[in-house]
Amino acid sequence: MSAVTYELIKTDDRTKARRGRVTTPHGVIETPVFMPVGTAATVKAMRPEEVKELGAEIILSNTYHLYLRPGHDIVREAGGLHKFMNWDRPILTDSGGFQVFSLGDLRKITEEGVQFRSHIDGSKHMLSPEKSIEVQTSLGSDIMMAFDECAPYPADRRYVKDSLERTTRWLKRCKAAHTNTEKQSLFGIMQGGMYKDLRKQSAEEIVELDLPGYAIGGLSVGEPKELMCEVLDDCVDHLPANKPRYLMGVGTPDYLFEGVERGVDMFDCVLPTRIARHGMAMTSAGKVNIKNAQYERDFSPLDHECDCYTCRNYSRAYLRHLFKCNEMLSAMLLSNHNLYFLVNLMKNIRKAIEEDRFLEYKKQVYDNYGAF
Amino acid sequence: MSAVTYELIKTDDRTKARRGRVTTPHGVIETPVFMPVGTAATVKAMRPEEVKELGAEIILSNTYHLYLRPGHDIVREAGGLHKFMNWDRPILTDSGGFQVFSLGDLRKITEEGVQFRSHIDGSKHMLSPEKSIEVQTSLGSDIMMAFDECAPYPADRRYVKDSLERTTRWLKRCKAAHTNTEKQSLFGIMQGGMYKDLRKQSAEEIVELDLPGYAIGGLSVGEPKELMCEVLDDCVDHLPANKPRYLMGVGTPDYLFEGVERGVDMFDCVLPTRIARHGMAMTSAGKVNIKNAQYERDFSPLDHECDCYTCRNYSRAYLRHLFKCNEMLSAMLLSNHNLYFLVNLMKNIRKAIEEDRFLEYKKQVYDNYGAF
Ligand SMILES: [Zn+2]
Ligand SMILES: [Zn+2]
Repeated sequence: MSAVTYELIKTDDRTKARRGRVTTPHGVIETPVFMPVGTAATVKAMRPEEVKELGAEIILSNTYHLYLRPGHDIVREAGGLHKFMNWDRPILTDSGGFQVFSLGDLRKITEEGVQFRSHIDGSKHMLSPEKSIEVQTSLGSDIMMAFDECAPYPADRRYVKDSLERTTRWLKRCKAAHTNTEKQSLFGIMQGGMYKDLRKQSAEEIVELDLPGYAIGGLSVGEPKELMCEVLDDCVDHLPANKPRYLMGVGTPDYLFEGVERGVDMFDCVLPTRIARHGMAMTSAGKVNIKNAQYERDFSPLDHECDCYTCRNYSRAYLRHLFKCNEMLSAMLLSNHNLYFLVNLMKNIRKAIEEDRFLEYKKQVYDNYGAF
Repeated sequence: MSAVTYELIKTDDRTKARRGRVTTPHGVIETPVFMPVGTAATVKAMRPEEVKELGAEIILSNTYHLYLRPGHDIVREAGGLHKFMNWDRPILTDSGGFQVFSLGDLRKITEEGVQFRSHIDGSKHMLSPEKSIEVQTSLGSDIMMAFDECAPYPADRRYVKDSLERTTRWLKRCKAAHTNTEKQSLFGIMQGGMYKDLRKQSAEEIVELDLPGYAIGGLSVGEPKELMCEVLDDCVDHLPANKPRYLMGVGTPDYLFEGVERGVDMFDCVLPTRIARHGMAMTSAGKVNIKNAQYERDFSPLDHECDCYTCRNYSRAYLRHLFKCNEMLSAMLLSNHNLYFLVNLMKNIRKAIEEDRFLEYKKQVYDNYGAF
């Protein structure tokens, strides 16, 4: 039996939305779920207890970043990533593939893997399927992701086909390199760009390997929202119902709804903490730019419908003051609220699915939130 | 009866060290006490609950900074500083005098007060005894400080004498401007530079006004430590035993000991949080520069004898990693430890005074801490 298992609890009558449960060595995750990102072994500006308190059941951390700093050997010697960063709930690590392609300089792709230079100090490195699994094994994440290439958008058919086929070959090497299957599970990643037949081909190739979960990669990479939805709709149909599905890098409220509606179970995004550091909040009434002069004497909470730590204790005027003074507490409080907002949104979505009112809840949020 | 009262519990047999208790409208402070600084209505990188949890019983906030940003009218409209920043324990506010002299540009001192330009946007302002009290009344601090001039070091006798006499005249105007004496108390500030007779003159002038507490200003402004100790020793003798004594801007462990030994009850300093942001920690074994390569694989806590949140949950290797990655959690965790270290040091000092072993405890800490 694999380290990570999935249980399908209920499927919505009118959509592909589904309520499920992922069990991992570090605990249970109710799905659909939003995973906060802790790039460098810390969810930025948050103590781990605060991340727990706001309801997050799993976080994502980045293989590429931890491989470069502090180095996976150090994390392993520390007793693994959970212990190193003081987080005892499940962790998912990505494979490093996405960052190698987006951050690494002078990359060179071969069948073996990807040669790249560190974006920090220019040092030369090689990331391959085996290396990625070695690093993720050192980190000790509950869910490891396969080393893949995420084709850019737009990309021509020939490139996407070659790339997805190499991704499948890399997935097989990842699976072969992954030995401690009772402690960590490996998820495969579907590619295929915006080409539906290539998505089908990719799905068939990776599903054959009978992995405990599958991610949909190469979406939300710059294509129009309608196209994303259309391709995603198709992708999910090629994945088995008894395995969790993870849509990578998605985290705006509207994309979360569209993903859930099409049968996705897991999401992650740096957006909530990143925009928090720029003074932006997601609220039930839409986006709030806390810098705006209109909040100078606004002593009401950031979000009237929110009961997060930030909204329970501070006013917009105070948050604006902190931001204007460049105080760290500004990022701390806004990150807390934004993460709570998304984690709580997913909780409400789960409840709506359970109560057969997913589409009604979606409409309600869209109506209140306004333009995304 | 004034808003703030002092009770002397015990005086050390061999030194002037004393155990006391300050009662304020927002609670009791056991003295000697170290007060964390929350310059802009936030103790940098800390949630107020964390400041409480580490044992701080009072914080200091800055009139100059809050007058400029967000403006004292906004804090007043918010319901006062306690509510604005979500801190329900006592607050002491300084008068703005020190910052006007050290941060304000193009200052001009007259009998009326000080004209200066904001260090933020160059706008022109006037701070006077009446204005300082008006601002501090808006903030609603438990303890307000008189508007004074802190003479530089070195300064000639004539300058220091004129300055201290003006400071006394300003104190009388502060006292006259302060009306809500049942909610806030005004402390006077002794000046006089390094001149003992001028210190005596200043003390006599301010003690005559029978205020609920007195601060010793104009020390720790660059003079040698021995001179500071000598002048301080003398200063305290001119102050009444039944009022709390506050040594402004002092916060290294050695200066805290020297101050307590000479009969000081209250201290404040930005040092613990400032050095934390630069990766420096005060520990029972001396200073630790977390950046150092020697901590790369050091999985032990920052301070083996500390049981603060940081030391209970994180390793030096992790703290070093956070600092190297420029993660906010680095400043958050080191600030927490450094504040805990000083707050806990004062707690131990109070216990040592109670148990007649103040000098022994001082020697023990000096021996372990090494060079200050
Ligand atoms: Zn909130
Ligand atoms: Zn500590």
